[in-house]
Amino acid sequence: MSSLRSEKTIVDIAEELELSVSTVSRALNDHPNISAKTKERVKKMARKLGYRPNAMAAGLRNNKSKTIGLIVPRISMFFPATISTIIQNKLQEFGYNLIICQSNDSLEQEIELANTLYSARVDGLAVSATLYTTDFSHFDIFKQQNTPIVFFDRTPKDYNVKVIKGDDFLGGYKATEHLVEKGCKDIVHISGPLTCNLYTERLAGYKEALQRHKLPYKKHRVFFHELTRENAWQTAEKIFAQKPYPDGIFATNDTTAITILEYCRKHGIKVPEECKIVGYSNDPRTEIITPSITSVDQFPATMGERIVAALMDLIQARHPAAYRHSQEIVPIQLVERESSGGTGWEIPDPVSNGKTAVATGATAKAVKKKK
Amino acid sequence: MSSLRSEKTIVDIAEELELSVSTVSRALNDHPNISAKTKERVKKMARKLGYRPNAMAAGLRNNKSKTIGLIVPRISMFFPATISTIIQNKLQEFGYNLIICQSNDSLEQEIELANTLYSARVDGLAVSATLYTTDFSHFDIFKQQNTPIVFFDRTPKDYNVKVIKGDDFLGGYKATEHLVEKGCKDIVHISGPLTCNLYTERLAGYKEALQRHKLPYKKHRVFFHELTRENAWQTAEKIFAQKPYPDGIFATNDTTAITILEYCRKHGIKVPEECKIVGYSNDPRTEIITPSITSVDQFPATMGERIVAALMDLIQARHPAAYRHSQEIVPIQLVERESSGGTGWEIPDPVSNGKTAVATGATAKAVKKKK
Repeated sequence: MSSLRSEKTIVDIAEELELSVSTVSRALNDHPNISAKTKERVKKMARKLGYRPNAMAAGLRNNKSKTIGLIVPRISMFFPATISTIIQNKLQEFGYNLIICQSNDSLEQEIELANTLYSARVDGLAVSATLYTTDFSHFDIFKQQNTPIVFFDRTPKDYNVKVIKGDDFLGGYKATEHLVEKGCKDIVHISGPLTCNLYTERLAGYKEALQRHKLPYKKHRVFFHELTRENAWQTAEKIFAQKPYPDGIFATNDTTAITILEYCRKHGIKVPEECKIVGYSNDPRTEIITPSITSVDQFPATMGERIVAALMDLIQARHPAAYRHSQEIVPIQLVERESSGGTGWEIPDPVSNGKTAVATGATAKAVKKKK
Repeated sequence: MSSLRSEKTIVDIAEELELSVSTVSRALNDHPNISAKTKERVKKMARKLGYRPNAMAAGLRNNKSKTIGLIVPRISMFFPATISTIIQNKLQEFGYNLIICQSNDSLEQEIELANTLYSARVDGLAVSATLYTTDFSHFDIFKQQNTPIVFFDRTPKDYNVKVIKGDDFLGGYKATEHLVEKGCKDIVHISGPLTCNLYTERLAGYKEALQRHKLPYKKHRVFFHELTRENAWQTAEKIFAQKPYPDGIFATNDTTAITILEYCRKHGIKVPEECKIVGYSNDPRTEIITPSITSVDQFPATMGERIVAALMDLIQARHPAAYRHSQEIVPIQLVERESSGGTGWEIPDPVSNGKTAVATGATAKAVKKKK
């Protein structure tokens, strides 16, 4: 094992400082019996020698790498990016670091990243799955080591884990009902792949709203695509190839809503006069585009905080019994803007009131009353 | 070491399958002398037992964890988010995974994350530093193990590493000169903290452009802030408290440019008629806001590809001699839009021509000719 020689161990530190190995070990682990001065000497030497603790041994000893792994589909999307930042800030309060991986909506990548994070010996895992993950068994390895897993946003239906998600059924319902209330009678829904729970639930909400308001459900008015900008443009072409045009469009993500609006602008279709648009996620871009786009806020701050709270609870419990399927729902809220004939964009003053709202019963009520 | 018992080793796999330990080891490492059938049996059992290879030992044996670490200031910003995705996609072609960490512009966090990624035994590291990193010695640990490091965008001046960055001096120069050409005579520059190389260089470009065009440099027309939305709003208040107003503003990032535009809209200051605005980064938001904002494209696709190429070269070389300070410059390009009196927004058709442009001598020339 001569190749091991270049790697410094606590024996090297002990030799350099003429201390016992156990003293060095305890100093590195902040043992109370070791003086602050010795700890400092040891840590300084450890840094100097480029010593790195054996993550496996250290992890097994105290069960803590103090690192959480996060897998999201695409870090460039508003919702995962915001959630990542909130999770990281919250974790810091608990003394944990965050390492982030993106699956690019590839199941193959997700499986590989699960293994990478497993080898990195994270203390817990938060996952928003790919559009196509229906078998979640690549996460079993974490369960076997009692490493907590929390799924959020894109979540499994029947895999035994803690799930934290938005109220997607209600979101789909409210988005559609809002269009009905604004006078739409022929509403297109643009959905994502139905392998992903979010989109089935929002679609169900759309159907329910049509039914309640006695509007017919028309199969040819529902489109499925992969929610990218390119797909959305092609979907827009299909939608406006149908005559007559729909008078309302509920898109299941904001990238799609923005692209549809761009298509309408390019082809002289007046929004909201001829066709109203509602998106989903409350991406900041919906606020700065003209006309501004009505969307559904999923309160990423609330969701991020609950994810961290759940992980910390599970890390404390660290017991197989923690692996039950349980689901926590974060509220949603429709944010009315110009694209659905709502009020115009009131430019927010970011200094006095630009903070991200957190949905609670109280504020939700206050918002309703204001309307 | 009784706590070690729960961790499965190759001995357990060997016992379960009644194979020798060396066969199991070679099977797990895809040794050519082991049959495909045995490899499959071993790997299946490894999965079943929840076996994880000792990252340290495995890493030392073949020097490869096949994982690259990335530290960026904020993943929610357009430029780092785009770069991350490009780096990941490119790395995949080489069979590498990416784990991403964000420093939140905190030096303390950056030091901790360097240690986290060091313990995770990444094969290489790409870093865009915090606004305040001037001492880079927390990255020395990687050098001691001959682990390649590439800095990009926010980079050290005199730390011995490979640096890949945009042409910030030229960017600052072109942005300012463009405002001069559009008739501005009194141009504000909003800069970032001068601890960060990007902002000193863009500021130097601004000064150079003023000088070349015989416009006076006025100290009270240069503002420094931390480049967040809140800071930008406060800076806008300071700028427009000065009478007369400036007739042009060059902001060193797009978040600032967007916020300045919002401030102008809210206070009835006409853009571009009364005051022209140029941002930096070519964030997609600059394209969808009204008026659309002129900005400087930094070609993240090109930069991301060069980062990966440099890492792969350095991994191959894996030699201390690789740690020289060398700097590679990625070109920039001014993208003219409405906020500086440029042409209006031509809505791009993302299907036929929505691909991110990659700057090459040829395309840069073509763009120039078109103008």
